[in-house]
Amino acid sequence: MPTYRAPLRDHRFVLNELLNVQQYNDIEGFSEATPDIVDAILEEGGKFCENVLHPLNRKGDEQGCKLRQDGEVVVPEGFAEAYTQFTEGGWTAISADPEFGGQGLPHYLGIAMSEMVTSTNMAFGMYPGLTSGAVHALAVGGSQEQKELYLPRMISGEWSGTMNLTEPHCGTDLGMLRTKAVPNGDGSYAITGQKIWISAGEHPMSRNIVHLVLARIEGAPEGVKGISLFVVPKFLPDEAGNPGERNAVKCGGLEEKMGIHGNATCVMNYDGAKGWLVGEENKGLKIMFIMMNQARLGVGMQGLALAETAYQYSLDFAKDRLQGRSLTGPKNPDGPADPIIVHPDVRRMLLDQKCFVEGARALTFWTALQGDLEEKHPDEAVRERASDYMALLTPIVKAYLTDKGYESVSNGLQVHGGSGFTREWGIEQLLRDARITLIYEGTNGIQALDLVGRKLAMKGMRPINTFFAELDAFVAENQGGGELEPFVKGLAETKAKLQKATNWLVEKGLENFDNAGAASTEYLHLFGLTCFAYMWAKMAKVSVQKLGQDAADPIYDAKLKIGRYFLARWVPQADAHLARIESGAEPLMALAAEAF
Amino acid sequence: MPTYRAPLRDHRFVLNELLNVQQYNDIEGFSEATPDIVDAILEEGGKFCENVLHPLNRKGDEQGCKLRQDGEVVVPEGFAEAYTQFTEGGWTAISADPEFGGQGLPHYLGIAMSEMVTSTNMAFGMYPGLTSGAVHALAVGGSQEQKELYLPRMISGEWSGTMNLTEPHCGTDLGMLRTKAVPNGDGSYAITGQKIWISAGEHPMSRNIVHLVLARIEGAPEGVKGISLFVVPKFLPDEAGNPGERNAVKCGGLEEKMGIHGNATCVMNYDGAKGWLVGEENKGLKIMFIMMNQARLGVGMQGLALAETAYQYSLDFAKDRLQGRSLTGPKNPDGPADPIIVHPDVRRMLLDQKCFVEGARALTFWTALQGDLEEKHPDEAVRERASDYMALLTPIVKAYLTDKGYESVSNGLQVHGGSGFTREWGIEQLLRDARITLIYEGTNGIQALDLVGRKLAMKGMRPINTFFAELDAFVAENQGGGELEPFVKGLAETKAKLQKATNWLVEKGLENFDNAGAASTEYLHLFGLTCFAYMWAKMAKVSVQKLGQDAADPIYDAKLKIGRYFLARWVPQADAHLARIESGAEPLMALAAEAF
Repeated sequence: MPTYRAPLRDHRFVLNELLNVQQYNDIEGFSEATPDIVDAILEEGGKFCENVLHPLNRKGDEQGCKLRQDGEVVVPEGFAEAYTQFTEGGWTAISADPEFGGQGLPHYLGIAMSEMVTSTNMAFGMYPGLTSGAVHALAVGGSQEQKELYLPRMISGEWSGTMNLTEPHCGTDLGMLRTKAVPNGDGSYAITGQKIWISAGEHPMSRNIVHLVLARIEGAPEGVKGISLFVVPKFLPDEAGNPGERNAVKCGGLEEKMGIHGNATCVMNYDGAKGWLVGEENKGLKIMFIMMNQARLGVGMQGLALAETAYQYSLDFAKDRLQGRSLTGPKNPDGPADPIIVHPDVRRMLLDQKCFVEGARALTFWTALQGDLEEKHPDEAVRERASDYMALLTPIVKAYLTDKGYESVSNGLQVHGGSGFTREWGIEQLLRDARITLIYEGTNGIQALDLVGRKLAMKGMRPINTFFAELDAFVAENQGGGELEPFVKGLAETKAKLQKATNWLVEKGLENFDNAGAASTEYLHLFGLTCFAYMWAKMAKVSVQKLGQDAADPIYDAKLKIGRYFLARWVPQADAHLARIESGAEPLMALAAEAF
Repeated sequence: MPTYRAPLRDHRFVLNELLNVQQYNDIEGFSEATPDIVDAILEEGGKFCENVLHPLNRKGDEQGCKLRQDGEVVVPEGFAEAYTQFTEGGWTAISADPEFGGQGLPHYLGIAMSEMVTSTNMAFGMYPGLTSGAVHALAVGGSQEQKELYLPRMISGEWSGTMNLTEPHCGTDLGMLRTKAVPNGDGSYAITGQKIWISAGEHPMSRNIVHLVLARIEGAPEGVKGISLFVVPKFLPDEAGNPGERNAVKCGGLEEKMGIHGNATCVMNYDGAKGWLVGEENKGLKIMFIMMNQARLGVGMQGLALAETAYQYSLDFAKDRLQGRSLTGPKNPDGPADPIIVHPDVRRMLLDQKCFVEGARALTFWTALQGDLEEKHPDEAVRERASDYMALLTPIVKAYLTDKGYESVSNGLQVHGGSGFTREWGIEQLLRDARITLIYEGTNGIQALDLVGRKLAMKGMRPINTFFAELDAFVAENQGGGELEPFVKGLAETKAKLQKATNWLVEKGLENFDNAGAASTEYLHLFGLTCFAYMWAKMAKVSVQKLGQDAADPIYDAKLKIGRYFLARWVPQADAHLARIESGAEPLMALAAEAF
């Protein structure tokens, strides 16, 4: 089996050197997260991922999940034991609320751990991942009683959670959902309907499963204005809060799918199941969207995580595989051939991955830090700015990191040549697993629409203008030549194109909404590219400073070299994005549907 | 199951209207291929693919092939019956040599049929596909006796064929191969060694399997100069040419892989198996490469074929799936939502596929026509020019059409949203099947090296200069405004960038070979894009003419609209390719292998 090594040095680079998270030591929870503590946690977490989760990954893929006749789901061998170890190790509680048993550590730490979990076993990681999303929704929208009942048990991992949105006839367009909720007269509701594609919907690893379900209360308005959120536990909690009577919700089938076979993707049938309203009537979507926003960042992280593993697999392969000779003369003259890493085109595929992974990690952790600042920073101005950034960056992190992450894994597979297509080398599984990230939690096209249709214009364009001002300030502050200059220039140029595209969008998008739709994906990619240009410029700045202080760690020199690959190979894409955006809707809308 | 409809109208457009193949009626074999005959053949072939092969595709994927303990391979249900029907229908013989039982029809007809076979069942199509490659190698390199023994039986499909190159330690670098051939003293050789990844290596569908095997004769020079080609039949032909004694070659295992499960990918163990030299000693690679060049065109065609099916699946989905409303107001006001084809971003994914499929089909058929002209045209100058084009275009068709074809299938999957990730809709299989096309018959990186390292400079750059002159002439002849103008302009601009990149390559690639390696993939893509710009300009020209003659068929108007999508969305990529090429090798070579 190929090897995975927890990328702890790069985690430390991003957290301590790039983001300098210690500067926020006065924030609740941050003071406990000293560099030593963070190191110790990530080191232990990394070992767990390397030694427990990674060895289960292929088995999980091959065995998949099975539905028994009694409606119970069998998960792959070893998953249940690993789940117990995972929860007992406290890994579900890292950044959860201490009031309910969480450790209250910063989100960026939680996401660093989640990255490693996903890198080593994405299908496994989705079980606690979904729980964490459900915890978030209950924390935001639940009553005090609901929080006290559910949160401690879910944060400990004793109970797990799911989110139930999709129905056979409606996914993106939730206004059409039909699942019904009828008041029982005792404060509870009877929930009836069918939900599909419910990840972790049924499994035996936790003592109870807490389903968060969107449904329409009898007599509620049609469309999105009549949707409420319910908590529907698999086992109804008794007086003492222990799992009691079995609720009328059952797994009716498992989806056969391309990847993430170790995770149970369930059809869930609600047949008058007992549920309780979360938040207000008809306001369920709002809570679900808060939860979904967090989940979207998590999906972006998955793009990064799988790309990291693919990079490691392909790097090892490229160093080991002897085939052909360097174009500039043998580099391994005593061997029968050179390792394929000598070939420029193999290096292209490796550097493309590395440049993605490191840029994506910086962007993901930076965004996760915004989540911490939004929640916890004492200064309202900082909270507001962080909240703006979270709103703006969420669709970009979700879609750009999964589109490019998928490409990155595919590059990793390609480095393997024919071996990449075989099961044995593990990388084809990564590509199959990665494919879902472009789809779930809102397809990447929906993210792009969210960006151009909502996030761009929100609050009088305050978020985007704040972001642009930050980039401009960085450019202004870091003039002055030297090794940093091409990075500053690359950022300035990319940002100028994004500014131009933004102006075009505001003008033409209002003129004809289809212009906004036609530009959306290209705009999101140009935005993602600009974020990467910013992250690489910031990473270059740190590296230049360290090298100026004669730092011996080879990471700084490597960062500059990978950064220069980014400038040479990624930045040129900006022009193509801009040209496509400015070509408008006409080339997309001209052909009648029947002429396709 | 989703539907496949043979794209006969577009086949006719390309053959009759774009390529005007009737102009070559004086060539052997072409005179029989009148438009009526071609129509009749493709119509019948299309029905076979729709009705026989397509329904077997998912079953083939799910059942895969199984190796029995006795070394025999079990293929998916229905495959053997379909194979019999396929051979009895004469489909293996369409463009084969009449001297040995072939129908002698043009290659372009064979490739049009192969496209439909691959579209409906790629794993199945590889069985006769590999035979066809082996036929070609024997036709080129075999003795008259070998031809008479093998060709009629293989052309009829009664016997099938394979090609055996790869060994565990060598794929691309065949110089390292170890399989040995020891003379038996009776004109035959004893072949011993292990070959891997042998497609169609063992199966029960044909009465005999003819393995073409690369091996090193005892005492031969090391490296590529000591490799010979052998024909090694599974059953040794008796005096009457019937399959006799079992030869000492066995399938030692089946590869578990990402896709094309219906095709048996075998480990083949040769244990003193009896084989006969094909062609001269130590000259085996030359014949194998002739065969491989034909196979590479076939792989490019596979990129097109799977993209066609993905396009059809996703188009049907986009017309049927009701979700959300058009940004410019309801288009299906009586329904609960609009079909998703109203959304610009869904149209982007559909048009991107359509623009690829139609451009790729034009390019593939045009290249196949060059193969016919190279073989059969009475004028030596035409034959030479066609031969130049075949050499130049082969790596481009192979790599560009599979890189972009894979992207195209992925777009088709994305149109399906969550459904795309499930088995039920069939498209995830297409994506898994398509992934191999970027790898086999030489990875796409190897194709790019072939282009910049061999094809560019061959014969004093005659092929590329001839091609450039053809493009320049088209641009010069078609000035004059009107609807054609943007196409001519798009072609001229793209070609100018390719010219610039070529000049850079010639200068900088000779200075430092790593510059050529670093530029190779981007250069191949810029070349592919230029070929597409040419094909779309030619298709636009035909369409403008037809519309000028008041042709009522909606295809002409559609071609112009899809072509304008190409200009708006594909052509801008040229700048990014050029910028990356001109950035040179340094950003790729700077990082030491141990610093990755």
